[in-house]
Amino acid sequence: MNMRIPILKLYDTLIVSIQWELDDRTALQFQEDLMEKLHETAAVGVLIDLTAIDFIDSFIAKVLGDVIQMSGLMGAKVVITGIQPAVAITLIELGIRLEGVLTALDLENGLDKLHKELED
Amino acid sequence: MNMRIPILKLYDTLIVSIQWELDDRTALQFQEDLMEKLHETAAVGVLIDLTAIDFIDSFIAKVLGDVIQMSGLMGAKVVITGIQPAVAITLIELGIRLEGVLTALDLENGLDKLHKELED
Repeated sequence: MNMRIPILKLYDTLIVSIQWELDDRTALQFQEDLMEKLHETAAVGVLIDLTAIDFIDSFIAKVLGDVIQMSGLMGAKVVITGIQPAVAITLIELGIRLEGVLTALDLENGLDKLHKELED
Repeated sequence: MNMRIPILKLYDTLIVSIQWELDDRTALQFQEDLMEKLHETAAVGVLIDLTAIDFIDSFIAKVLGDVIQMSGLMGAKVVITGIQPAVAITLIELGIRLEGVLTALDLENGLDKLHKELED
């Protein structure tokens, strides 16, 4: 079965909710899908919701870091929402700083932050 | 692997994007998840996006019809977006009328319709 991660376009923002632990292939597919969708929709913001994720491994953490950098190159601002304690610990321990990325507790706050940032 | 369908809460609306053909078990799990989420969040609107779906079978069509009825009982208005021609044909041929349900071409139009309906 095709296990693509849904990417929703809502006005000028792409919204992605990751609801299960990703395997490596799904993560790379997601990376590719998101870049294509950014190109196709000319979205200026990307919101990635990790609320449902309570563990990430080093490969997925790297993919996430890469996605943020790539989105930046494509002119989109990224906000990550719902980072759980264990995920925050993993990211920092792996040296993935998520520099320049916005974070927020939940989807609504994330969208608010993103819109404020885009207005500036 | 757990194949739950992501349900996003955005303000007073739940947003569901179905991106692959559902098997029966996933569809029933989705039905249950959505009802629980409605109860938990007290959302007043549900948007189900079927853009990615180009075929539904009779079981899934029935589950979809049931979800709409159940959401109504729980006080939420449903809008279905992105119904493709083949899906529309299946729904009508199976006698699933989707009565009282809003439909729209895409996510943005769906949310607009939902909000207009909820304001009335």
